Amino acid sequence: DKQRNVAVLPGDGIGPEITEEGVKVMKQTGEQFGYRFHLDFGLVGGSAVDRLKTPLPEETLRICREADAILLGAVGGPAWDRNPPPLRPEKALLGLRKELGLYANLRPAKLFPGLAQSSTLKEEVLKGVDLLVVRELTGGIYFGEKHTEETKAGAKATDTLVYHEHEIERIVRRAFEWARERGKKVTSVDKANILESSRLWRKVAGRVAGDYPDVKLEHMLVDNCAMQIIRRPAEFDVIVTENMFGDILSDEAAILTGSIGMLPSASIGEGNRGLYEPVHGSAPDIAGQGVANPVATILSVAMMFRHSFQDDEAARAIEEAVTRVLDRGARTMDVAAPGHLALSTEEFGDRVVEEL
Amino acid sequence: DKQRNVAVLPGDGIGPEITEEGVKVMKQTGEQFGYRFHLDFGLVGGSAVDRLKTPLPEETLRICREADAILLGAVGGPAWDRNPPPLRPEKALLGLRKELGLYANLRPAKLFPGLAQSSTLKEEVLKGVDLLVVRELTGGIYFGEKHTEETKAGAKATDTLVYHEHEIERIVRRAFEWARERGKKVTSVDKANILESSRLWRKVAGRVAGDYPDVKLEHMLVDNCAMQIIRRPAEFDVIVTENMFGDILSDEAAILTGSIGMLPSASIGEGNRGLYEPVHGSAPDIAGQGVANPVATILSVAMMFRHSFQDDEAARAIEEAVTRVLDRGARTMDVAAPGHLALSTEEFGDRVVEEL
Ligand SMILES: CC(C)[C@H](C(=O)O)[C@@H](O)C(=O)O
Ligand SMILES: CC(C)[C@H](C(=O)O)[C@@H](O)C(=O)O
Repeated sequence: DKQRNVAVLPGDGIGPEITEEGVKVMKQTGEQFGYRFHLDFGLVGGSAVDRLKTPLPEETLRICREADAILLGAVGGPAWDRNPPPLRPEKALLGLRKELGLYANLRPAKLFPGLAQSSTLKEEVLKGVDLLVVRELTGGIYFGEKHTEETKAGAKATDTLVYHEHEIERIVRRAFEWARERGKKVTSVDKANILESSRLWRKVAGRVAGDYPDVKLEHMLVDNCAMQIIRRPAEFDVIVTENMFGDILSDEAAILTGSIGMLPSASIGEGNRGLYEPVHGSAPDIAGQGVANPVATILSVAMMFRHSFQDDEAARAIEEAVTRVLDRGARTMDVAAPGHLALSTEEFGDRVVEEL
Repeated sequence: DKQRNVAVLPGDGIGPEITEEGVKVMKQTGEQFGYRFHLDFGLVGGSAVDRLKTPLPEETLRICREADAILLGAVGGPAWDRNPPPLRPEKALLGLRKELGLYANLRPAKLFPGLAQSSTLKEEVLKGVDLLVVRELTGGIYFGEKHTEETKAGAKATDTLVYHEHEIERIVRRAFEWARERGKKVTSVDKANILESSRLWRKVAGRVAGDYPDVKLEHMLVDNCAMQIIRRPAEFDVIVTENMFGDILSDEAAILTGSIGMLPSASIGEGNRGLYEPVHGSAPDIAGQGVANPVATILSVAMMFRHSFQDDEAARAIEEAVTRVLDRGARTMDVAAPGHLALSTEEFGDRVVEEL
């Protein structure tokens, strides 16, 4: 029986608008592939702070724990930028990742046909780009001890980057598993000429590689990678890296898809449960106007079918529907050619549903 | 009297080849502008490890302390990649930066006429690009306490990112000073939604901005900046950021110049003494072939005249000579159009000398 519980957390800014399109596509796909969905809606981020004085209410965490998958819109915005750390919207993301043990963040970047003109990179450079950034999500400097103290010479702020061998091992192993299904190449990114944690990372990656003789491993320094990702992007297959480097490199890789509005993500742990969200933020400047690009969210729903429901066929159905809609020239504002009519968020979602 | 002591540290890989061209241009410029140079050559990096079992010999440090300026080629290479940390070539860079108090690293990126075709970015995106990355160079995670320990659950590696208020203040202040002479805009890059050190950074930057009402300050998160630098590069003027973020973003910005072979850098402290080196590395794959691009080194010499000798006229003479050589179509291998003859390192250096 294909009964699934899905927690839906629309969040802030454009979050509600794009989530609505994601849910629409999820329901339609579910109908075609015989799923029965039970949806639980929860507050998260700034809107949760406003109503319940916390970015991640207990009730939200509860429905997420009971869910097979979580669809999240976006959190944050200038309204909460001056909040003290515990009341900051993005605390909700960190809390969900940590509480649910979602240590593997997947950010695939590939160019959809017809979108090269929206990228700032030359079309010939984008040819053949199909990369997957695998970012460690529950360790590193995001979660290490941090504090600020007053000294006689003024304030002193400290952050700590910690990695345990087993944290590196499990994420690198998954990167190799995925590479096996793809281009059979893993680029492990670190700063081993400076950081102790990177030297451990490199050592563990080398050891794990021994179990995957069919997959090629290369090590790359993060500064060089930031350059190579836009210099010869088609040469990458799977990039695996620690939390902060992954944050930076995956945003950079958004350029390869024409718009950050195209980039989906999945955050998963040991079981099948996962959290699916667009890579882009809450875009407060365009919130409420119905012009946001829902593609990243819709593709995140595809990743939900693939990773949480183990249903590659349904995932591909969604991805192909998006491709066909784009092929017909439909575009939201962010990727529309100058002088061309842009569709609204809702219209674009409807087109995808029709194509399904 | 224009008597100057310059320490020359060729280093490893292509280091000696490109340094030779830098020295040639320095001497010629010195002759024209009435300088008398005393040059001291020193061992550094892997070649110092091989001969003296340390990447930064006492004697090298001594000539650097006595110098008005230091010209460095590049350090590192696969021969020393497996060395333990104290015997790693890049330790020399860290040692020089710290010992000489060179806390401000300047990496200007602009496109030379005719080089747009060598960039992977579209020509119209590169129009008007002229940015300066100001990287903090003696603090942050590069110099914080670091160690690896064995635990029952396996190894655990720790790095520490520390910033003192005064370290942030002095670098941000210099960024504002430079912005005043340029486009009057400072983008301060941090990860203030996660890091304590970034929250302090943002606070101090905001306070310093108060002393520069004629310069605009914007704050940007590092992940977003990694995207914006290639999405709308012409909108940046001065980017100021901490050590590790600056390392990543300035390598990325190399794409804007067509080749990392074009990017010079200056590292300076409180006085006029500075260290000048290309941003690129030692490129062991092409070392000894005489095909490396000497432009980054030659432009680093221009920065030496500007920052250490306070001689903007001589600096501009070098920059204009390089522009004219490029204008005439002369190219080294890395930026030559397919099918066009590439000049050797030495030939290119000679052309610049002729143009001076
Ligand atoms: C909002 C922020 C905390 C978050 C992160 O840095 O992880 C975001 O940039 C992301 O990439 O999901
Ligand atoms: C070689 C390395 C230690 C160095 C750094 O990270 O600072 C280099 O990448 C640079 O940017 O000068």
